[in-house]
Amino acid sequence: MTARDISPLQKAFYDVIFGTETPAGKWFDIILIVAIVASVIIVMLDSIWNLHTEWGWLFWQIEWVFTVLFTVEYLVRIWCSPNRKAYVLSVYGVVDLLAILPTYVALVFPQAASLLIVRLLRILRIFRVLRLLAFLNEANILAGALRRSTRKIFVFFSMMMIITVIFGCLLYVVEGPESGFDNIPISIYWAIVTITTVGYGDVVPLTALGRAISATGMLIGYAIIAVPTGIITAELASGLRGNHLTTRNCSQCSRAGHDLDARYCKYCGSDLPPLSRDGE
Amino acid sequence: MTARDISPLQKAFYDVIFGTETPAGKWFDIILIVAIVASVIIVMLDSIWNLHTEWGWLFWQIEWVFTVLFTVEYLVRIWCSPNRKAYVLSVYGVVDLLAILPTYVALVFPQAASLLIVRLLRILRIFRVLRLLAFLNEANILAGALRRSTRKIFVFFSMMMIITVIFGCLLYVVEGPESGFDNIPISIYWAIVTITTVGYGDVVPLTALGRAISATGMLIGYAIIAVPTGIITAELASGLRGNHLTTRNCSQCSRAGHDLDARYCKYCGSDLPPLSRDGE
Amino acid sequence: MTARDISPLQKAFYDVIFGTETPAGKWFDIILIVAIVASVIIVMLDSIWNLHTEWGWLFWQIEWVFTVLFTVEYLVRIWCSPNRKAYVLSVYGVVDLLAILPTYVALVFPQAASLLIVRLLRILRIFRVLRLLAFLNEANILAGALRRSTRKIFVFFSMMMIITVIFGCLLYVVEGPESGFDNIPISIYWAIVTITTVGYGDVVPLTALGRAISATGMLIGYAIIAVPTGIITAELASGLRGNHLTTRNCSQCSRAGHDLDARYCKYCGSDLPPLSRDGE
Amino acid sequence: MTARDISPLQKAFYDVIFGTETPAGKWFDIILIVAIVASVIIVMLDSIWNLHTEWGWLFWQIEWVFTVLFTVEYLVRIWCSPNRKAYVLSVYGVVDLLAILPTYVALVFPQAASLLIVRLLRILRIFRVLRLLAFLNEANILAGALRRSTRKIFVFFSMMMIITVIFGCLLYVVEGPESGFDNIPISIYWAIVTITTVGYGDVVPLTALGRAISATGMLIGYAIIAVPTGIITAELASGLRGNHLTTRNCSQCSRAGHDLDARYCKYCGSDLPPLSRDGE
Repeated sequence: MTARDISPLQKAFYDVIFGTETPAGKWFDIILIVAIVASVIIVMLDSIWNLHTEWGWLFWQIEWVFTVLFTVEYLVRIWCSPNRKAYVLSVYGVVDLLAILPTYVALVFPQAASLLIVRLLRILRIFRVLRLLAFLNEANILAGALRRSTRKIFVFFSMMMIITVIFGCLLYVVEGPESGFDNIPISIYWAIVTITTVGYGDVVPLTALGRAISATGMLIGYAIIAVPTGIITAELASGLRGNHLTTRNCSQCSRAGHDLDARYCKYCGSDLPPLSRDGE
Repeated sequence: MTARDISPLQKAFYDVIFGTETPAGKWFDIILIVAIVASVIIVMLDSIWNLHTEWGWLFWQIEWVFTVLFTVEYLVRIWCSPNRKAYVLSVYGVVDLLAILPTYVALVFPQAASLLIVRLLRILRIFRVLRLLAFLNEANILAGALRRSTRKIFVFFSMMMIITVIFGCLLYVVEGPESGFDNIPISIYWAIVTITTVGYGDVVPLTALGRAISATGMLIGYAIIAVPTGIITAELASGLRGNHLTTRNCSQCSRAGHDLDARYCKYCGSDLPPLSRDGE
Repeated sequence: MTARDISPLQKAFYDVIFGTETPAGKWFDIILIVAIVASVIIVMLDSIWNLHTEWGWLFWQIEWVFTVLFTVEYLVRIWCSPNRKAYVLSVYGVVDLLAILPTYVALVFPQAASLLIVRLLRILRIFRVLRLLAFLNEANILAGALRRSTRKIFVFFSMMMIITVIFGCLLYVVEGPESGFDNIPISIYWAIVTITTVGYGDVVPLTALGRAISATGMLIGYAIIAVPTGIITAELASGLRGNHLTTRNCSQCSRAGHDLDARYCKYCGSDLPPLSRDGE
Repeated sequence: MTARDISPLQKAFYDVIFGTETPAGKWFDIILIVAIVASVIIVMLDSIWNLHTEWGWLFWQIEWVFTVLFTVEYLVRIWCSPNRKAYVLSVYGVVDLLAILPTYVALVFPQAASLLIVRLLRILRIFRVLRLLAFLNEANILAGALRRSTRKIFVFFSMMMIITVIFGCLLYVVEGPESGFDNIPISIYWAIVTITTVGYGDVVPLTALGRAISATGMLIGYAIIAVPTGIITAELASGLRGNHLTTRNCSQCSRAGHDLDARYCKYCGSDLPPLSRDGE
């Protein structure tokens, strides 16, 4: 990533738009969140037929105000980036573009109105602001727990996939083709709806045997709801426990991560400084 | 908060009404809970049409008995408070007022009968009594775990909000405007109903693609049900662990981590300082 | 509890019927469980109209076989008990009686046929056998975790009760009397169905505002599903951790419960025996 | 298990088909998973009536290609196994056979077409590949936690079984025979659907008393959802903790509890023995 030299003016804009340390940067972020949420709400309201027929022209005008604002913001972001190409091609750069493009496209090709829904991707932009604000640490703990659990969750999902296929097929065979379980994909859809305990009730077993098998499946699903929960919890708990380690650094090798009851450095064997009172 | 001087009579009433140490104070609390629950049940029964037409006049009379009782209690509470303004403006003071006001308002403006529902806020008054009774410690642990998790829960809800918006819009586009997913807010309502695994079944995908997307969303929702659970559990567990260990340090070897019932240091065998009272 | 002297024959029967150590006692327990499960299944099948009309007479005969068997067992239990009154008045004694009484009552008063359902309480007798068999320890850990959590669960249920009352009333007011939310008890029933994520869909909000409030309630319910889970998990985990303590006994004061890293007894300060290898 | 001598060619095939260390073995596994998933998808699509009438002949041809491939694979597996009988009679051997048999049977007896569903057991073959690939460790931790929890889960399911029988019968008696709760098995089905929070809504209480009892049951079910979750989580957490600590004892002070990355005893500072390979 090759950074360009940027002028002081660009640097100032950069600090406000990309940064969060300065008061101006904070205000910019807050205003941006408000604008994003407002524009998303407008898109949602516009999808309601009654409101669209009555207030559609107003929504359209407000939408253009937001689009112009976001366009200006996007251009300024490009202009003040030290590395323009990296920004434009980054995930956030693409989301920023997708947030404004559909409105222009709909202007040129009115028949592409369904593209307007893409504007709702604007909501992803909130992530950027949150990321910059103070929630980095919490999100990191969560993300760390999820990342460390990836393989366990993969194993779990494979298991669940196989369970839903088996129960779906069982019900497909038992219930027969006339009672909602018309084909195997629908039966698997039913199995997922059931095992996740969503339970819409749009496809439902009607025979005695089908109900008995379903009930078994529910109890199994109920038991294995514990598995992903337990995985993440255990990971989170061990992540938190990590937080409970002292931040004492060994005076010889400077490494941290010593248990509360450690008296000697576990890496180099030299004495550790005594525990200060703030260790809970 | 400037406390007034209050007469001995006021002090005696104060101990009974606000306090819980004296036997009279305990009896007062128990009678108050019974009265609150009874009055809430009367309001509920009165909302059933059959019972209202037949027993409405009786409910009305009982309601007035409770209202007069609560009014007297409210006035006595004001009268015996050391700091009257603080009480009246406190949350509990406002709830106490809201618990009696609607009945009087409905007497003056009979058309404001729907206001009577506000009387159900009386149920919040139970909190006060519970708070005063013995459940303070448990509620504190729970509240502490929730408070420490606030930021994690905020991050979690932001994530979930964005997931429901994305799935809601996907289904809105896929299912089309004729099958329940009439507009984006309804689709988001459907997404929340689905991802929380409530699954009413009032709005349901009917196309194959819509069902496939829904099933994916359910599995994701099922996986992330682990997240808030794990957060709170980990916090609770570390809260409990904190409770089970003292921060007493051995005066000889300065090491901590002693159990509540330990009298001698488990590392060097010397006497431990006595347990101070704040350890539960 | 005053124990009577019992004859050797009574003692032998007692060991078989109440005990589990002898092979005969184990076989008796297994046969008893099979008989209980079989008789419960017969009662269930008899409730199905088709089967009742066709096989009702057979079920009736089998039922009488079981009833006579259980009656004989009940009488023998009384006969061989060291303390007859204690047995008859114990929970298990009452359940044993309720398991056979309805059949006789239905013989005398045929119109009391609905009493026959009481026979299903027989299933509670399985508890007795399970309690005697090997699952005592597991059940104890679970029961211990639940008992230690009682107060927390009480606080939790109070909170949930108040939340359901508030959401029920909100929907009652918002949805109006014509759309399922006919009165406050039904609305509270809806709130419980929703917040526990059961979500039947028999009562469902139809107005936009009602749906928005419901969605909020679901998200809250989804978040607080973590609370009881977390409570029990944390208690269970600390119960299990207790299991990880060594069983080393102090040679001076004979007390156990020492941590793995303890070198001196925490109760009397004397040396502990070294840790044997089986400590995991 | 008596191993035969096998020729070098058989050994080479064995390494590719059963092994995963060689590049060829890895490619074979990947191709096998793709073929299994593709053949399962074909079976599913063929169950959809529209697709079957239009593309049925194509599905049939593709199905035969897969069947021939899997047959060849099955024969080669037998041929290159050191112990042929052990393979054929193993679970995986039977699944491998069941994956190809139905197609041949349906050729001979066309009326046995419903047997074709058995082909979906092919999905179980994915387990074998996953087992061989890298997910062994994660699956082991999960399986270990489940195995250690078996007895607790058994106690839990007994309890839940008894609760559903009791609530099912209560609703059967309260709701009467005309409102969905037609017999006790259906009522128990309803109780399981409710307590697992699936909540289809196909059988629903309509009387006030039935609704009150259901609501109670839901709250109980909501509370005890914590139990299996808590069990597994606590077991998983202690399994993870076990993984993070070695059982190495310091040769000087004999104390254990050292982290995996520790090289010196944290209690006395002397060298620790090197970590043996079985610690992950």
